Amino acid sequence: MQAQLIALDWGTTSLRAYLLGPAGQVLNRRSLACGIMQLPSNPRRVAGQWCTDGFELAFDDACGDWLDANPAIPVIACGMVGSAQGWREAPYRETPASLPALSTALQIVRSVRGVDVHIVPGVIERSTLPNVMRGEETQVLGVLHSHAHLNDCLIGLPGSHSKWVQVQAGCLVHFDTFMTGELFAAVCEHTILGRTQQASPQFDLAAFERGVHVALSADGQLGPLSTLFSARTLGLTGQLSATQQPDYVSGLLIGHELSALSHALRQRRGEQPLPAIILIGTSQLCERYQRALDVCGFTQVSLAEQATEQGLWHLAQAAGLLQHTHQEG
Amino acid sequence: MQAQLIALDWGTTSLRAYLLGPAGQVLNRRSLACGIMQLPSNPRRVAGQWCTDGFELAFDDACGDWLDANPAIPVIACGMVGSAQGWREAPYRETPASLPALSTALQIVRSVRGVDVHIVPGVIERSTLPNVMRGEETQVLGVLHSHAHLNDCLIGLPGSHSKWVQVQAGCLVHFDTFMTGELFAAVCEHTILGRTQQASPQFDLAAFERGVHVALSADGQLGPLSTLFSARTLGLTGQLSATQQPDYVSGLLIGHELSALSHALRQRRGEQPLPAIILIGTSQLCERYQRALDVCGFTQVSLAEQATEQGLWHLAQAAGLLQHTHQEG
Repeated sequence: MQAQLIALDWGTTSLRAYLLGPAGQVLNRRSLACGIMQLPSNPRRVAGQWCTDGFELAFDDACGDWLDANPAIPVIACGMVGSAQGWREAPYRETPASLPALSTALQIVRSVRGVDVHIVPGVIERSTLPNVMRGEETQVLGVLHSHAHLNDCLIGLPGSHSKWVQVQAGCLVHFDTFMTGELFAAVCEHTILGRTQQASPQFDLAAFERGVHVALSADGQLGPLSTLFSARTLGLTGQLSATQQPDYVSGLLIGHELSALSHALRQRRGEQPLPAIILIGTSQLCERYQRALDVCGFTQVSLAEQATEQGLWHLAQAAGLLQHTHQEG
Repeated sequence: MQAQLIALDWGTTSLRAYLLGPAGQVLNRRSLACGIMQLPSNPRRVAGQWCTDGFELAFDDACGDWLDANPAIPVIACGMVGSAQGWREAPYRETPASLPALSTALQIVRSVRGVDVHIVPGVIERSTLPNVMRGEETQVLGVLHSHAHLNDCLIGLPGSHSKWVQVQAGCLVHFDTFMTGELFAAVCEHTILGRTQQASPQFDLAAFERGVHVALSADGQLGPLSTLFSARTLGLTGQLSATQQPDYVSGLLIGHELSALSHALRQRRGEQPLPAIILIGTSQLCERYQRALDVCGFTQVSLAEQATEQGLWHLAQAAGLLQHTHQEG
């Protein structure tokens, strides 16, 4: 099948490359540890020219062979590659943000091959405490395209920095960030809680749900700064084993995240029911969030797949990059 | 003046030793980096015996010369030295805990010199989420003795693990722990927030208070997992400089701690006014907490001094260790 688009999901620590076919289907994919903070540093020839630029080297590693085989193929990229520390800064677009608005704001960087890389801008919400995303906006757009019937929903992107994006009529209208994943790692690796923990051979659902329930309980009102200490004291008193502690802490933090989120939603929405939720993320993380959302009373939760590839495809299509191809995706 | 007591405040990372006189006044003091997690490891002779035990070596470093000069002097110690990883475990005493209860539960370990070291037990509160302290109970007792008129007060011990101890009629009746100090360090050293921070040449009060206000604001209801990200976004949007970020984050976390604490107090106390607060800690940290408590509406806040020495003195006195001395402290 004829390749139509090279789509790059280029973040801080990794670079995922997709070769997409006529309807946006994935013909080939690869993942490299070439995020913008760990670019290749060994100079070499690229397209006949001596090249020292890490972005050029990574780009060539990721899809040089695809470009050789498809010389006229368009290229689109999202993620931290468009940040101030990226290959070319693609300034944030403000909320409300939509597919048309983002697709007309792609920044172009021309590689040494002469190929234009179209970089998707991130999104900023300029509230009292501003909020930003880069990469997640593309995933949200990918999901919206395949869930066109949804007018009012909340899209959750759990991760190092979880995002919760409120969508109305195809627009990203508001979002919040929680540093849950990164704080979980910092707590387990760099505080006293890590000293008594042992990795669990498998996901300990009971320990995880216990943490969620504590976060939602009256004790949880003291917040994570306080409840985290219970991982230690429940251990000291023989009520939580070393292997249960990591999943308990994970449940505590995710529970606090969702408790705060659902409290804010109920305040904003009054009598309206809680919105439908679509989760985008790794299956392991989405399983945790599904369990915790269930405990929090969210009844409509579904999972999205191929959100990034689909988002990049539809952005490229809306930007006219696919104009000579069959557009049905 | 005649030395009456050697008092040791022996924690995880440090060992503070006090030589106390007839009324509990400090005749001499020293501080060693010999906490129970970093004991000396070079064997040597102690009191004529070959000695390899780190606790013995640290004890000799801390007060061997004082013991040589005062052979019959009693010795008392508090802190992590009484934990399961300490010199001798002094099992926790349950709340409500008082001077008489703790002073009759000292654990004795006999050193190679033949000197008995009396170790103060920690305190445990066996609620749904248990809470523990070791060392802070001694500081609280030291403060209570010099504030005998206070019947209902809250004693705050800010630090790596801040403790808030509710005192009634001379008893420790309830306490909460917040891992604020340790989480502050983990966040600044081991998350993305640290990457854009620069140390401030001096305490930036305005940045600190801004953080406190955010924690107490409507935005703060999303909790620290969410508000912490604002240190990054306010930086990205030019509203918070690199040198302002550490004190802003400090204000955020302390603000969340005090917001949760005051919410819980108001729930427990109903119409009763907020209690008087006494802070025990380093002057830098107490200054931050005083500022933040003021923002939170606590009007009666005072600072305690020499809490540990005084607590150890009164515990020794209550235990009868000073029976042959002039007891007036």
